[in-house]
Amino acid sequence: MEIKSSKEIQDMERVKRLNLINSITGISPANLIGTISNDSIENLSIFSSVIHIGSNPPLIGFILRPTENNSRDTCENIIETNKFTINHIHSDMIQKSHYTSAKFKKNESEFKKCQLTPEYLNSFLAPYVKESYVKIGLNLEDIQLIKSNGCRLIIGSVEHIYVPDNALHKNGNIQLELLNSIGVSGLDTYYSLNKITQYSYARVDDPFFKTA
Amino acid sequence: MEIKSSKEIQDMERVKRLNLINSITGISPANLIGTISNDSIENLSIFSSVIHIGSNPPLIGFILRPTENNSRDTCENIIETNKFTINHIHSDMIQKSHYTSAKFKKNESEFKKCQLTPEYLNSFLAPYVKESYVKIGLNLEDIQLIKSNGCRLIIGSVEHIYVPDNALHKNGNIQLELLNSIGVSGLDTYYSLNKITQYSYARVDDPFFKTA
Repeated sequence: MEIKSSKEIQDMERVKRLNLINSITGISPANLIGTISNDSIENLSIFSSVIHIGSNPPLIGFILRPTENNSRDTCENIIETNKFTINHIHSDMIQKSHYTSAKFKKNESEFKKCQLTPEYLNSFLAPYVKESYVKIGLNLEDIQLIKSNGCRLIIGSVEHIYVPDNALHKNGNIQLELLNSIGVSGLDTYYSLNKITQYSYARVDDPFFKTA
Repeated sequence: MEIKSSKEIQDMERVKRLNLINSITGISPANLIGTISNDSIENLSIFSSVIHIGSNPPLIGFILRPTENNSRDTCENIIETNKFTINHIHSDMIQKSHYTSAKFKKNESEFKKCQLTPEYLNSFLAPYVKESYVKIGLNLEDIQLIKSNGCRLIIGSVEHIYVPDNALHKNGNIQLELLNSIGVSGLDTYYSLNKITQYSYARVDDPFFKTA
């Protein structure tokens, strides 16, 4: 068992520490966030920090690092337009999605550079990714500064959801196994998903506790 | 393609909306958070909201819902002791981990009820989960109220990390595929992970852009 103390972690070489701390939380969702500036310049960037904030009202957040690639454009566009989209990455679009993290100039579109297709749906201002199977259109709800390190938590309220008919279970669950959905570990490693089990809502009178 | 507008989502039956919005972000990490009260009552609870906040200093966060099972105990214990642990769930401990979400009484230990083993390492106050392969000990760094819905973002700074020797790559990456690590979708569906690809840091002069 390898043990790392806070002192050892602090003393690690920068990239090694970056990899360790980015991958230590386990698998993360892999999404593309699409925005557009008031000057109609589209931006697209891969994020592994998309997180469920609440269901009623439906709120989704993600973490923006001030120094991260494309983060500034994504953030400025969201502040300018109040709109952004979240688009699932599936197994046939990993490479193109990964390369959206390169440092392009502000007037260069990651869509064009990475051969992904902007798609405008139901008059929503921000671009979706045509190649994605699951797409969410969001209105900016709040930006919270994370005082500990200057990152920001961007929170959006869900305006539209697009899901392939067959992937939406009648109980409301998205069936990731029917969508070739993937996950990402750390900054660069991608994983496919296989459904292994599903459990019912845990109640204290469940048979599990009687046999346990 | 199934389309849901914000109005339709708002009008959905509660559990269906809960499932949809909890699963729409894609795969999430599955972790157990261990705490102890000043009265030495241990608490353990499954969370799918653990998120990387920053690497320098190493900060990890998770979202606490005021109304969620065990959330109150977890939160009170962290405020009392300033300590908590994050423990990866692997494929052989999914059921026991899932059932930590049942509504136990405050003086009942989820460890005992769910047959998981508390483990104390290096004099760290909060209990780890012996069965987990990856364990993180954290000090409370900050609690931020999410104004949009009253949830809280709990942020901890990393004090200790425990990883099996063979799973820590020399570049710092945790190799989830060697740990039987799993992910969770929504509230109840668990997925195994298969590594499919890994890409280098994206640079604008990468051959990808020349051939693209």
